[in-house]
Amino acid sequence: MTTAHEYAAAHRDEFINQLTELLRIKSIGTDSAYNAEVLRAAEWLAEDMSRMGLENIQLLPTGGHPVVYGDWLHAGEDAPTVLVYGHYDVQPADMKDGWSHPPFEPRTENGKLYARGATDDKGQVMIQLKAMESLLATGGSPVNVKYMIEGEEESGSTNLENFVKNNRDLLQADVCLISDTGMRGMDKPTIYYSVRGLIATELIVKTTTIDLHSGQYGGIVHNPAQAVAEIVAKLHNDDGSVAVPGFYDSVRELSAEDREKMAEVDALPSRITELLNGLPEWGEPGYNRAERTGARPTLEINGISGGYTGDGFKTVIPARAIAKISCRLVADQDPHEIYELIKRYIAEITPETVRTEFRLTDAAYAAITPLESPYMKAAERAIAYHWDEPVIFERGGGSLPVVAMLQQEIDLPVILLGFALPDAQAHGPDENLTLEMFYRGVDCVIEYMNDVANIES
Amino acid sequence: MTTAHEYAAAHRDEFINQLTELLRIKSIGTDSAYNAEVLRAAEWLAEDMSRMGLENIQLLPTGGHPVVYGDWLHAGEDAPTVLVYGHYDVQPADMKDGWSHPPFEPRTENGKLYARGATDDKGQVMIQLKAMESLLATGGSPVNVKYMIEGEEESGSTNLENFVKNNRDLLQADVCLISDTGMRGMDKPTIYYSVRGLIATELIVKTTTIDLHSGQYGGIVHNPAQAVAEIVAKLHNDDGSVAVPGFYDSVRELSAEDREKMAEVDALPSRITELLNGLPEWGEPGYNRAERTGARPTLEINGISGGYTGDGFKTVIPARAIAKISCRLVADQDPHEIYELIKRYIAEITPETVRTEFRLTDAAYAAITPLESPYMKAAERAIAYHWDEPVIFERGGGSLPVVAMLQQEIDLPVILLGFALPDAQAHGPDENLTLEMFYRGVDCVIEYMNDVANIES
Repeated sequence: MTTAHEYAAAHRDEFINQLTELLRIKSIGTDSAYNAEVLRAAEWLAEDMSRMGLENIQLLPTGGHPVVYGDWLHAGEDAPTVLVYGHYDVQPADMKDGWSHPPFEPRTENGKLYARGATDDKGQVMIQLKAMESLLATGGSPVNVKYMIEGEEESGSTNLENFVKNNRDLLQADVCLISDTGMRGMDKPTIYYSVRGLIATELIVKTTTIDLHSGQYGGIVHNPAQAVAEIVAKLHNDDGSVAVPGFYDSVRELSAEDREKMAEVDALPSRITELLNGLPEWGEPGYNRAERTGARPTLEINGISGGYTGDGFKTVIPARAIAKISCRLVADQDPHEIYELIKRYIAEITPETVRTEFRLTDAAYAAITPLESPYMKAAERAIAYHWDEPVIFERGGGSLPVVAMLQQEIDLPVILLGFALPDAQAHGPDENLTLEMFYRGVDCVIEYMNDVANIES
Repeated sequence: MTTAHEYAAAHRDEFINQLTELLRIKSIGTDSAYNAEVLRAAEWLAEDMSRMGLENIQLLPTGGHPVVYGDWLHAGEDAPTVLVYGHYDVQPADMKDGWSHPPFEPRTENGKLYARGATDDKGQVMIQLKAMESLLATGGSPVNVKYMIEGEEESGSTNLENFVKNNRDLLQADVCLISDTGMRGMDKPTIYYSVRGLIATELIVKTTTIDLHSGQYGGIVHNPAQAVAEIVAKLHNDDGSVAVPGFYDSVRELSAEDREKMAEVDALPSRITELLNGLPEWGEPGYNRAERTGARPTLEINGISGGYTGDGFKTVIPARAIAKISCRLVADQDPHEIYELIKRYIAEITPETVRTEFRLTDAAYAAITPLESPYMKAAERAIAYHWDEPVIFERGGGSLPVVAMLQQEIDLPVILLGFALPDAQAHGPDENLTLEMFYRGVDCVIEYMNDVANIES
């Protein structure tokens, strides 16, 4: 009898052809002009799920783009249930951003498949589905599985929290498996065991209702482009730490073991050295690079703007200026509390000669999965199917709101088993998927399901 | 015999019709798409000069848009020569900026003529030309006159300095008369006796060559949008004074008489009170509002930008950020010295974790005409032809590079006899010219020429 791995090996080209079909659909979730295409991607996935033998397939409404749901629950009542999460929406993509070929016309070259979504996350959703197809086609799955593939990840998963709250029973499971992250390299298998939380905010500094002429009014009005700089400059101390009072108060202390693990990760070479090209690194004193990017909270100015910055110059005093400020948060920081701390501080440091507004536009909690969890051990074993190298366990610096939502709402451990390589260019031009990682990914997921089946709950 | 004033009164409608023709020409000098229209405006002026009896009419090349030149030198060798400056280029104008009617379809309503350029500066150029037409048509001019009407004022008069240097003999005169400013009100006749100098600069703050993801690299890279704010925040002291060492060193001390005059101007109501709508004013301590805007140098952030500031948010660490910084300068500050002072200071305060560049993009000297100059007294008398109110002598806050150029290159006193009212909306939507000010302006210029004829050189 054919094994699931043999089936997967025999169907490689077919899998890639199917992925190519999905990649042709311009499901840019952040732009309503593409709503019909987003829906078409959801429908394509539902059909594919049906073709491979999943059941109870539905496009579930969310208030925004639908969640594609499907399950297969015939492994037996005692078998564990794995909830798989992924997303079918993609980032915008435009030739002018530096693509070598049209982003929605997939192209294979030197073992890589180039297209928007190839890695983030259509390619990795297909790793999950094709692993299950291989199991179902060769005797069935050893575990019960549920698939929740959303269409709003690139828009901050705005409607997902409500969706999860309203569908607790449907989504009930023993573990959540997500392929939406990556590895440090083809020879450096990596599992991220935490994600950082996030707040996104907007600071607006205003004076007059109209822009003023700097000849007429320069010298008697506090210029908002200057005031926004003065406020932003006070958000960090000179040593690189965040100056907002109370910002670090609720941060969970790192254990000696934690710090040891991070010292190992810190010792690995980082691309930042090359990117900085001679400039020194920067940041909070007392913590190494791995800690600063994974275990410590940060405050970033993602954008600042005011007045005229085009060609030539305009001697204008702008009426307003803005800064987009986000924080990466760690356990146990509460995003809403952090927002209030910053808001209070900004009110304190706002000069009386300008007005400020400070708005919260997005919030997500940090999340962490214990390294000793059996579901984590299963992931380590699954990776060993293809890799001889020891797994690097690393704290992720980014945020994946769904992880904290599932942990908080359904109390699920979440395993991030991702296969993107560092040059995958997620969100960038020439996004790509290394085909070898796709094939290995399918095998790893098959192994993971087999391993999880043996975990006693 | 008809007097020049009678001629002007009899030809009011004809003058306005001619101005209307000129206003229909879209001579937007800052946009090369309008180059043909800019040339058409120059040609229209040359024809009008010819029609009214000026001689030696030429479109003189400058490297950019031509200078329209014409003269009438038959007042006698002993008569003074007046050089009149103006410009025929206009600012861009678009309905979407809030115009009530198309900006190049002039329209008269409630005694105002609405069109781009109505005040700045076509309307005021025509005040000069129609005054001279009135003199020439009624016996000739009492003074020799030369007209230099340029096409690059709205682009910073880029080529004018070279033009003036190369045409010193042609432009030789006893006084330069310019109508390109305004008055405080219909009942508040005003003469500006100084203009501020200017430097325009660009500060660029850079780290990496590509934007970074704040999840991956947040906490270990000095964010340029933050660093630009930190640098900009250090350009002023907390009390509003400029923090650049040496910035005020060469500023000419104000005399007791100067300060007395400015105290009078300061006591006048200012539109800034309404514009600030309850916010306190701001600025250098120890100087009043009139001094801060007219007699003291300032440093303004005209623009700041970096990263993403559109809808929603992007958790990006930008690779670079910029600030456009300009200074208004006063006598005796040297723009190039001030640029060097700021450059040195920025180099000092640039953190070692980022790179900065600081470029000079424009420079102009401040200029001042002594109140006791006989040419200034003549202007005061000319205004008395229509106004009973005493003339307000005020320092202008803006910059008019040509003033300092002419003072430095040809050592000419420059008289700013302008007729714009505060609601003229120069550079803004619904720019307009109050027709009564046009008529009075023509009479004042006729009077000015008559007065200057009596000055003994």
